[in-house]
Amino acid sequence: MVEGSRKMVSLLFVLSLFSALSAAKLSVTPTKGVPWPMPMDYKTTGKQNTVDAASFRFTTRSVECDILLDAYVRYREAIFGRNADRFHAMRQSPKFVQMFSQEGDIGEVSVDVSKPCQGSYPSLESDESYSLSVANGQVMISAQEVWGALWGLETFVQLVYKSDTGEYVVNDTIISDKPRFAHRGLLLDTSRHFLSTRILLRNLDAMAQNKLNVFHWHIVDDQSFPYESMAFPELSNKGSYFPESQVYTPTDVAEVIEFARLRGIRVVAEFDSPGHTQSWGLGQKGFLTECYSGEKPDGSYGPADPTLNTTFPFLKQFFAEVASVFPDQYIHLGGDEVSFTCWQSNPVIKDFMQKMSYGTNYAKLEGYYMQNLLDIINSLKRGYIIWQEVIDNGAKVRPDTVVEVWKGGWEEEMEKVTKQGYKTLLASCWYLNDISYGSDWTTYYTCDPQKFNGTDAQKALVMGGELAMWGEYVDDTNVLSRLWPRASAVAERLWSPKDVNFPLVAQPRLIEQRCRMIRRGIPAEPVTGPGTCPVEYREP
Amino acid sequence: MVEGSRKMVSLLFVLSLFSALSAAKLSVTPTKGVPWPMPMDYKTTGKQNTVDAASFRFTTRSVECDILLDAYVRYREAIFGRNADRFHAMRQSPKFVQMFSQEGDIGEVSVDVSKPCQGSYPSLESDESYSLSVANGQVMISAQEVWGALWGLETFVQLVYKSDTGEYVVNDTIISDKPRFAHRGLLLDTSRHFLSTRILLRNLDAMAQNKLNVFHWHIVDDQSFPYESMAFPELSNKGSYFPESQVYTPTDVAEVIEFARLRGIRVVAEFDSPGHTQSWGLGQKGFLTECYSGEKPDGSYGPADPTLNTTFPFLKQFFAEVASVFPDQYIHLGGDEVSFTCWQSNPVIKDFMQKMSYGTNYAKLEGYYMQNLLDIINSLKRGYIIWQEVIDNGAKVRPDTVVEVWKGGWEEEMEKVTKQGYKTLLASCWYLNDISYGSDWTTYYTCDPQKFNGTDAQKALVMGGELAMWGEYVDDTNVLSRLWPRASAVAERLWSPKDVNFPLVAQPRLIEQRCRMIRRGIPAEPVTGPGTCPVEYREP
Repeated sequence: MVEGSRKMVSLLFVLSLFSALSAAKLSVTPTKGVPWPMPMDYKTTGKQNTVDAASFRFTTRSVECDILLDAYVRYREAIFGRNADRFHAMRQSPKFVQMFSQEGDIGEVSVDVSKPCQGSYPSLESDESYSLSVANGQVMISAQEVWGALWGLETFVQLVYKSDTGEYVVNDTIISDKPRFAHRGLLLDTSRHFLSTRILLRNLDAMAQNKLNVFHWHIVDDQSFPYESMAFPELSNKGSYFPESQVYTPTDVAEVIEFARLRGIRVVAEFDSPGHTQSWGLGQKGFLTECYSGEKPDGSYGPADPTLNTTFPFLKQFFAEVASVFPDQYIHLGGDEVSFTCWQSNPVIKDFMQKMSYGTNYAKLEGYYMQNLLDIINSLKRGYIIWQEVIDNGAKVRPDTVVEVWKGGWEEEMEKVTKQGYKTLLASCWYLNDISYGSDWTTYYTCDPQKFNGTDAQKALVMGGELAMWGEYVDDTNVLSRLWPRASAVAERLWSPKDVNFPLVAQPRLIEQRCRMIRRGIPAEPVTGPGTCPVEYREP
Repeated sequence: MVEGSRKMVSLLFVLSLFSALSAAKLSVTPTKGVPWPMPMDYKTTGKQNTVDAASFRFTTRSVECDILLDAYVRYREAIFGRNADRFHAMRQSPKFVQMFSQEGDIGEVSVDVSKPCQGSYPSLESDESYSLSVANGQVMISAQEVWGALWGLETFVQLVYKSDTGEYVVNDTIISDKPRFAHRGLLLDTSRHFLSTRILLRNLDAMAQNKLNVFHWHIVDDQSFPYESMAFPELSNKGSYFPESQVYTPTDVAEVIEFARLRGIRVVAEFDSPGHTQSWGLGQKGFLTECYSGEKPDGSYGPADPTLNTTFPFLKQFFAEVASVFPDQYIHLGGDEVSFTCWQSNPVIKDFMQKMSYGTNYAKLEGYYMQNLLDIINSLKRGYIIWQEVIDNGAKVRPDTVVEVWKGGWEEEMEKVTKQGYKTLLASCWYLNDISYGSDWTTYYTCDPQKFNGTDAQKALVMGGELAMWGEYVDDTNVLSRLWPRASAVAERLWSPKDVNFPLVAQPRLIEQRCRMIRRGIPAEPVTGPGTCPVEYREP
């Protein structure tokens, strides 16, 4: 086996890229069987092994667990297509075996996981490392935890490609891999437009194909409240666009969480307050601040009203339900973009400000609200993620709070937040809802969340980042194609080593990744200019 | 019937728009049963008529023709959904009739067409006018030609909406309608990325829903040659991305043309030359100019070589086939963006330039090429559309040539082209492949193709315009959602009266149109900000 380091492989990519830029078809030649995101350590040779479709199976030497068994079915399909199961059954028939004159080199992928995993959930502390070897006709994946094994399976599937003669082949390869960041998130906003559960699940599949591991579900906002609460059903009855069809029932939510768990993906729900809560007010009377015009309420509402004695009992009951529905250790509490205008107009709020000696500093009132909410979440024994304003406004938060930075000037903010000792996530440079003509993935690809002034200890507080797809201009019609493969650029930034960051080198591999996603049912749009995929997208 | 003029209706829209902007759901309330594009003359009242789904049928008092019969099936489905036919059959059953206690006011739409239409094709001279009345429980559509009747049917279907109690209803309405421009085109580029025939057909459906009437099929270009020629099969065998799967066979092309014809849509094929022809060179050796580096060919190729004695015989045979395959009176010949660098390097070309006394003016060589090509098309008795450069470079063209303006500074160009007496089309302000964040449809909506300095006679030479979706960044995964309903903005500009041009007034109607398209199977994306549709998009 000729051992080429990752960097040597990269150099080869660049060379093959330039040679491929012939005048004829004017398009970049994609790689074949090279994974995305790039593993930490990846050695491969040109020695091809055929994969024996007839006998192919995954085997687990050690523990059995539901997550692995589900993954085996899924990944056999990912290699051989939708009819994989039927195909697999057929191989039992002696007639069929006769038909297959050629025996493949590889008929088995052996998976070794050290820790038991039946029924477990991924977390910020998951060990996602794995090793993978394809050598001497044997494939072995080993990992401490099932989460690493899942990523190893994903990588293996990506190593398999079709040879020029149409056979499934995989090159001799040795991989030792783990993510650079533990939190690799994708935010979907299901309030500004509703997204059907069907689309959420397909997106989780796409996330797994790119080793993203946190679905940040910005589930409600000003525009609508599609979360069906068991304790407060009026929230979605009144606050959703259509309570009959555009809500997430408890069953829907459970399905999303289970589908994600089986793919090693955490579901972090965000219930943003005290701002961004207009839709809450429709089903929860007295929750929002009444805005005044002069002496009288003008009929409009502002942020949550922290002065009423009903506010925090409601929040306590509501978030107790949230904590029981969403198993993740973290809840995202929002806390962004609170407008003070309405609070300033309301006489009761003004009295309260005086009583609390806040003067005219409404950031203190916001801090008061957040502090009470954080105490509630503390009492529920959950951690929280918050948008940067909560810290900017000086609320006292738990030391293990994760602060998500989303505004411009993020380098200074990350420096500040980590100096205060908080864990942090970067979102600022990955607002994928913002679109422009051409290959914008390169700007996402080259944004590094540790590129700010700070000590190593500060850098170590960067848990990772999240790409955001805010919902103003996306719904079921376009959200998947707008996300993918642009989100793949962020996924590689958050998984792969820091120095895997040349767009020109990544491009042939990104093209392969896009075509792979298309073959696996995701409408990943073309982002690198003219070209094609061998298999075209078809609606499922 | 209270008669409200179009302008009064518009004013009502504005008022309802503002009242709908409540703080609660923060979204604009869509119209109900108001057509897009806005008819020339549209009077309606609040008097609702129920539509009797059980007995509903279209009847033709005068001529029978294939186009109408096909449309009746399609439009019944457009009103009542996919199960319309089954539903229609069920109504024969007496038991079913009993079940329907409520009899609708409207059970019949009577269609009157003056001229025979069996087997006919739409053209630039088609009479697309129609009148439509819904009054006293009767619906009548009348038109001189079937093309007008088709648009009348489309309008009627758009008038039908679901009442608050879930019934199909239509308001009393009187419409007299015809398009402002005869040529309302949409360009798709199937070379930079392949688009499957399935997607082309769905797009034709979407075009019909917006009364666009020309599919400008930019079928080949530098990057690939997916048109399967019967006379020159090597063009697609060598020049397509995948000759097995990513080509348009004669059957595919015929299917597209027939599908379009039945919807009143012309198919104008563009075979762009002498530039944009790299892919031709793969299957037609000797067609392209060999580029030289010093004394020797450097292995790359430039535009078509006008000096070889094989070039024009090949083009003559090729375009004779094109003329036999595409029935439209017009062929688009391209002629844009010819780079002279390669011609300048080639010694044979240089000799030819000298022989022809062209000096170093390569625009004259381009003119020579185009002139020869235009003569070929003349001999085939076809008209042609050309990109503006052909005129800019001074080629002599037929007086009925249509010049398509696509560059910036289009106002000056349109002035110049029409001063020379040519018919013209505007594309410059409708490059929908170019994207940006937010509601960019308003810029397409407010671009008026007659807004240039010129006499009335010059303005009358504006045949209309075309929106373009160049293929660098779109394929089957995203082309429909990127087109619609942004293309609807152009469609209304080209159909409706000049003064129907306020985006704020159009917006509630555009939202209804988007939701209507979604219900009818087109993934029209959200373009007006947060909101929802009662029926969500589902992949077909």
